[in-house]
Amino acid sequence: MIKTDILIIGAGPTGLFTVFEAGLLKLKCHLIDALPQAGGQCSEIYPKKPIYDIPAYPEILAGDLTEKLLEQCKQFEPGFTLGERAETIEKQDDGTFVVTTNKGTQHQAPVVAIAGGLGSFEPRKPLIDNISSFEDKGVEYFIKDPEIYRNKRVVIAGGGDSALDWSIFLSDIASEVTLIHRRNEFRGALDSVDKVQELKNSGKINLITPAEVINVIGHTKVEGVVVHQSKNINEESILECDHFVPLFGLSPKLGPIANWGLEIEKNAIVVNNALDYQTNIPGIFAIGDVNTYPGKLKLILCGFHEATLMCQAAYKIINPGKRYVLKYTTVSGIDGFDGTRKEAPKAVVKKIE
Amino acid sequence: MIKTDILIIGAGPTGLFTVFEAGLLKLKCHLIDALPQAGGQCSEIYPKKPIYDIPAYPEILAGDLTEKLLEQCKQFEPGFTLGERAETIEKQDDGTFVVTTNKGTQHQAPVVAIAGGLGSFEPRKPLIDNISSFEDKGVEYFIKDPEIYRNKRVVIAGGGDSALDWSIFLSDIASEVTLIHRRNEFRGALDSVDKVQELKNSGKINLITPAEVINVIGHTKVEGVVVHQSKNINEESILECDHFVPLFGLSPKLGPIANWGLEIEKNAIVVNNALDYQTNIPGIFAIGDVNTYPGKLKLILCGFHEATLMCQAAYKIINPGKRYVLKYTTVSGIDGFDGTRKEAPKAVVKKIE
Repeated sequence: MIKTDILIIGAGPTGLFTVFEAGLLKLKCHLIDALPQAGGQCSEIYPKKPIYDIPAYPEILAGDLTEKLLEQCKQFEPGFTLGERAETIEKQDDGTFVVTTNKGTQHQAPVVAIAGGLGSFEPRKPLIDNISSFEDKGVEYFIKDPEIYRNKRVVIAGGGDSALDWSIFLSDIASEVTLIHRRNEFRGALDSVDKVQELKNSGKINLITPAEVINVIGHTKVEGVVVHQSKNINEESILECDHFVPLFGLSPKLGPIANWGLEIEKNAIVVNNALDYQTNIPGIFAIGDVNTYPGKLKLILCGFHEATLMCQAAYKIINPGKRYVLKYTTVSGIDGFDGTRKEAPKAVVKKIE
Repeated sequence: MIKTDILIIGAGPTGLFTVFEAGLLKLKCHLIDALPQAGGQCSEIYPKKPIYDIPAYPEILAGDLTEKLLEQCKQFEPGFTLGERAETIEKQDDGTFVVTTNKGTQHQAPVVAIAGGLGSFEPRKPLIDNISSFEDKGVEYFIKDPEIYRNKRVVIAGGGDSALDWSIFLSDIASEVTLIHRRNEFRGALDSVDKVQELKNSGKINLITPAEVINVIGHTKVEGVVVHQSKNINEESILECDHFVPLFGLSPKLGPIANWGLEIEKNAIVVNNALDYQTNIPGIFAIGDVNTYPGKLKLILCGFHEATLMCQAAYKIINPGKRYVLKYTTVSGIDGFDGTRKEAPKAVVKKIE
């Protein structure tokens, strides 16, 4: 059982900044996210795209935003359960909550902050009858750890940035990379499309277009895929491989959270914005894009503010009766849980003679 | 009469970010500030101090924060009335407001956003009977334009960072710089104290300590000051000069805004935080440190959020009946009022063969 002060569902920008604000109040955080890495959609969907409305950043790439937020909160030593989806929540007799993931990992905390964005990102799966029986046996919809593909034969399907970028990345690691797409045209950053063309020309990526994978074969794990090439009607061939990675995009789903007894309105969790972004269940808060209230704007900068006010309420739940007096970081500095200290250079009082 | 869409009282971080958010909604802003430059206390009081709790900035100097915010909003061409204090407000028959400064400058807008921080910063003045008659005639409490001191004889009084830093800066510009402080010890950044010591040793700054200016002399303008040196009891001498600049610090005062008919609680303006941070007077909003509501935290990041929601309400007042659909900057880019456009690099659709 993982125990913490604030259990955060969702490791996107709002969740990460919560770690920092909680840390200032000496509260520890643990984050759960269905994606294999922190950053939410900023890291998974558009890491190379610029965002223009983060305050004091005239422009910042979404991936860089994640890096900065991770750097800012790292001294408060957040814990992570990544690649797992928060599935159930149960209130305990002592008032704490236990949250269990789809893989059975259990977490306990007196405060739960749902910073779930648009929901957990679920991969769009290809329409192949037997594919689910090969999941985690050679079929992956996300690439969590590129190292598992070292010296393996990998088939990637898809025509967007993820398919292009992972084909490029794995061409250095895997023994064989085949990219299959149902059209001849790919849609992505110009650089990525050109790079795949180059790697195809030099024989480092096999390209099969227009084509589709229509079946997965193997006994206990993936041994190959059946490829249907559209240009030659009814031509099917077997391609031997160790991994089949369909990258057809992700679509967000509120998912199991919708069954936690929270008040939901248009796929978002209703909160009390006049105070602390608490939901209808005391001790459970919802912050960032996942919540709704009159005038709500689904902007990252609003999530930062909501996280900050929520942490104050969490402090009161965790430290009943204790009063917290706001300290300015510029004045008081920051003490990390890892023993580090940040502070402004002190003024000196010195004689000039 | 200066006309604009949103008239912002206060050019600190919250005011500057309002310009950006308003610009996204195609609304123009004009800012009034009692200080001679934008940035509020970040620029005036602690420009060289690090702030640690601006989201995604593990550390940023307050002065750099101002620079970044100015850069972010510059494409929306804000107007500025600086060095003047907003004094009176009058509602017009057409529903707009006219705000007049202490120097008589008039501004008209349908929406007023008070982003006044802790209030307008008023200089602490030395207790010299006749000093007010020399204000703007050689006595200045702020340094607005260092060029007016070129080849002049300047007496600076004070023992903190401002006195030290301006003495250093003006030693290259003025014909003569004298620094007077009632103690031998100065309080400031080590670098600054050491630099003043060095300039004193090389004769570029005259230092008189412990001493006080007890009188200003001159006919139509400053011609000198009377200095009382504490170590020799009752020794008074006349020091000829063109400017006397007492830099004894600033203290914030809510000031004339307190008389605008707004609901005030503990020196802050009460707003409706459950919706749009509007005050008790429709069309007048209060955002950032100047406002109060249940759970209020006086943090810059909260001002950013409040500014953003406020702009949506301003849009509805200025464009009645028109519906605004939130656009993401990453998706839609930004069109500046100056004709510039920012946008994410477009994805290409390209054949690989």
